[in-house]
Amino acid sequence: MKLLLNVRTRKMNSRKKKSDSDEARNCGDIHRLAEELKISGRAIIDFSTPASPLGVSKKIKSELRKYLKDLDQYPDPEARRLKKRLAQEHGIDSETIFCGNGSTELVYLLARALRPRNILIPEPTSPEYERACRSTNQELRVIRYELKEETNFDINPEKFISAMSGTMDSSLITHHSSPPFDLVFLCNPNTPTGRALNRGAILQIAAAAKESGYYLVVDEAFIDYHPENSAIRDVTNNPHLIVLRSMSPFYSLSGLRVGYGVFPRHLVQKLKDHKEPWTVNSLAQRAAGIALKDKKFRADTLKSIQDEKKFLEKNFNKIGLAFLPSAAQFYLAKIEGATEICRQLRTKGILLCECAESRGLDRSHIRIAVKSHRENAILIRELKNILQRGLECLSVAG
Amino acid sequence: MKLLLNVRTRKMNSRKKKSDSDEARNCGDIHRLAEELKISGRAIIDFSTPASPLGVSKKIKSELRKYLKDLDQYPDPEARRLKKRLAQEHGIDSETIFCGNGSTELVYLLARALRPRNILIPEPTSPEYERACRSTNQELRVIRYELKEETNFDINPEKFISAMSGTMDSSLITHHSSPPFDLVFLCNPNTPTGRALNRGAILQIAAAAKESGYYLVVDEAFIDYHPENSAIRDVTNNPHLIVLRSMSPFYSLSGLRVGYGVFPRHLVQKLKDHKEPWTVNSLAQRAAGIALKDKKFRADTLKSIQDEKKFLEKNFNKIGLAFLPSAAQFYLAKIEGATEICRQLRTKGILLCECAESRGLDRSHIRIAVKSHRENAILIRELKNILQRGLECLSVAG
Repeated sequence: MKLLLNVRTRKMNSRKKKSDSDEARNCGDIHRLAEELKISGRAIIDFSTPASPLGVSKKIKSELRKYLKDLDQYPDPEARRLKKRLAQEHGIDSETIFCGNGSTELVYLLARALRPRNILIPEPTSPEYERACRSTNQELRVIRYELKEETNFDINPEKFISAMSGTMDSSLITHHSSPPFDLVFLCNPNTPTGRALNRGAILQIAAAAKESGYYLVVDEAFIDYHPENSAIRDVTNNPHLIVLRSMSPFYSLSGLRVGYGVFPRHLVQKLKDHKEPWTVNSLAQRAAGIALKDKKFRADTLKSIQDEKKFLEKNFNKIGLAFLPSAAQFYLAKIEGATEICRQLRTKGILLCECAESRGLDRSHIRIAVKSHRENAILIRELKNILQRGLECLSVAG
Repeated sequence: MKLLLNVRTRKMNSRKKKSDSDEARNCGDIHRLAEELKISGRAIIDFSTPASPLGVSKKIKSELRKYLKDLDQYPDPEARRLKKRLAQEHGIDSETIFCGNGSTELVYLLARALRPRNILIPEPTSPEYERACRSTNQELRVIRYELKEETNFDINPEKFISAMSGTMDSSLITHHSSPPFDLVFLCNPNTPTGRALNRGAILQIAAAAKESGYYLVVDEAFIDYHPENSAIRDVTNNPHLIVLRSMSPFYSLSGLRVGYGVFPRHLVQKLKDHKEPWTVNSLAQRAAGIALKDKKFRADTLKSIQDEKKFLEKNFNKIGLAFLPSAAQFYLAKIEGATEICRQLRTKGILLCECAESRGLDRSHIRIAVKSHRENAILIRELKNILQRGLECLSVAG
């Protein structure tokens, strides 16, 4: 399966030191763009942040309105009610669940509680895993499992397990270090690639982690479209498996900050000892509880994303934009002159996520989230115009 | 000035190891009480959490309603707009301000960034300072500056400075350690005592901190009623002074989580390196911005607290409840059988903050926040009934 089209960019996988931590923050930073353009944030079409094309659910908005008067009260520091609902939803023990200020807080909590000396991360992936671990240990050794563009940035479970065991082809290991790694991170589906492993593969890697005595953290922030890949119920049976979830991308709650994680029982007290209090605000706890019950919003979002993905894929092909098939609500696309294209789109209030600063990617890569039909149509129109003008220039120059 | 009345309790300052971290969380934990009583949180009168007697301001509620639809967007990770407003408000450089998930996040951020080996804290005070520092360093040495009940738990600046220099009467130092301390914490006004130092005293201590090369952190979470005591503008001139503020207690925003801190310029990059992203949610940033402009709410809250403090003080005296005069919107009160009194009040849905688990206090101490007139009147009525019944029992027994 050769999935990338029109691959006409510069050499991949440059090894320059990049400020990963800033990258993820620039994605979704409509505030900076709004300031630059002197317009309201609402006027920006933000393709850099995955969210439901339906926006914030009506039920959530209507319920939150009722609770604004209760903001004088502290949030439940343990989010008991939300944890109970999550436990029911997933059929797991609520004592093994922690809620966080987005799943991001839980990545940092894990780093503080476990203070890893060695971590294994795929490359490219979210920069927060490394940043979180580095903030607790300046001497951190990072082993990067390099995902190859020619194999669609897919993870090969066997090779990944070999990398964990330190017995694999050394060309895949960019910083030498001896196992065991304290923490192995996997984002499933991965960002910004949208590529997923199935549950079988995850369990295979988790079993290897258990055997080798380190922890596998599976970040399932974008798994809603393929819940069959989830290992969330498997944490119970593997004391070395940790699964993180975010409520933000699917339920359009990025602004409110709520995520959760399921942890091995023997880590619960350690995590409690390091957990900062009251990090999940009252409205976030309410909203998450309502979201879990709102089956209609869930079904409508799934349908909308499915339809819009078809629309975008058809049109990406039409205008000659290479992209990776994705298990998530965003695409990793690749196009020559991406920086200039993004700049032109920014002047029109359209924000994409540029990946130039992501390790393992380059200036030709952009992440595009799936938005509402109206917004997606605008993006396609604008992209087409820009590419058209580019061809005209070439033809004049020629 | 002898301020405590009816001192008829057991010996003070017991040295038993207490689980401080749980104490602060039980205060304000209306969620647990609501669950116990099987009633809604709204039905509970919460005297354990300081808030405006006016509740959440109408302007904030009305503005937040408009922004619920924008929750699909990430919060500004740097809270630029809010920082700009805070900078104007205080006449300081916005680059030296960090916003946090309550001021609590900033205590933990400082601990992570500075990793103190030694800290000096008054006792009693908020348990979060010690907990935050201990979470980054298991070997942390804590020097406790014991506040004496016979001097109203007031801090004597000269003695405090001596404690910082390690040259003071050793009876005041409970864990021996050699200076310098990396961090010195002062809550001004202090919790749960409500006792304040004036700005002159704070600056004196800050100058000593500068001279000795450690950092003085002044937590001004409860300073709104005596802003003349604030050292927030003095951070500019002392590279060893840090001032923290919370928006929660004055603006009834505990549920939303927003606070800020002003830091020496040379610490800014270090703090950025350790700051977790997106911790201050979008609504919190909006609400704080609106709160700062809402001069009427501010004036009305100040007036209401002033009136209600007079009412409570008069009635505390009438019913024979000993309390400390307070510079904040809460009182440290002292009464025999406080545990039983709080238990009886809990069954009626009235929550006080018991201080039995606070270092330097005992079972006779409770913290009572100032609420609306209706609620304060209910508290006085219920307390009077309980104390009346107590006296009747004594008389029957006699």
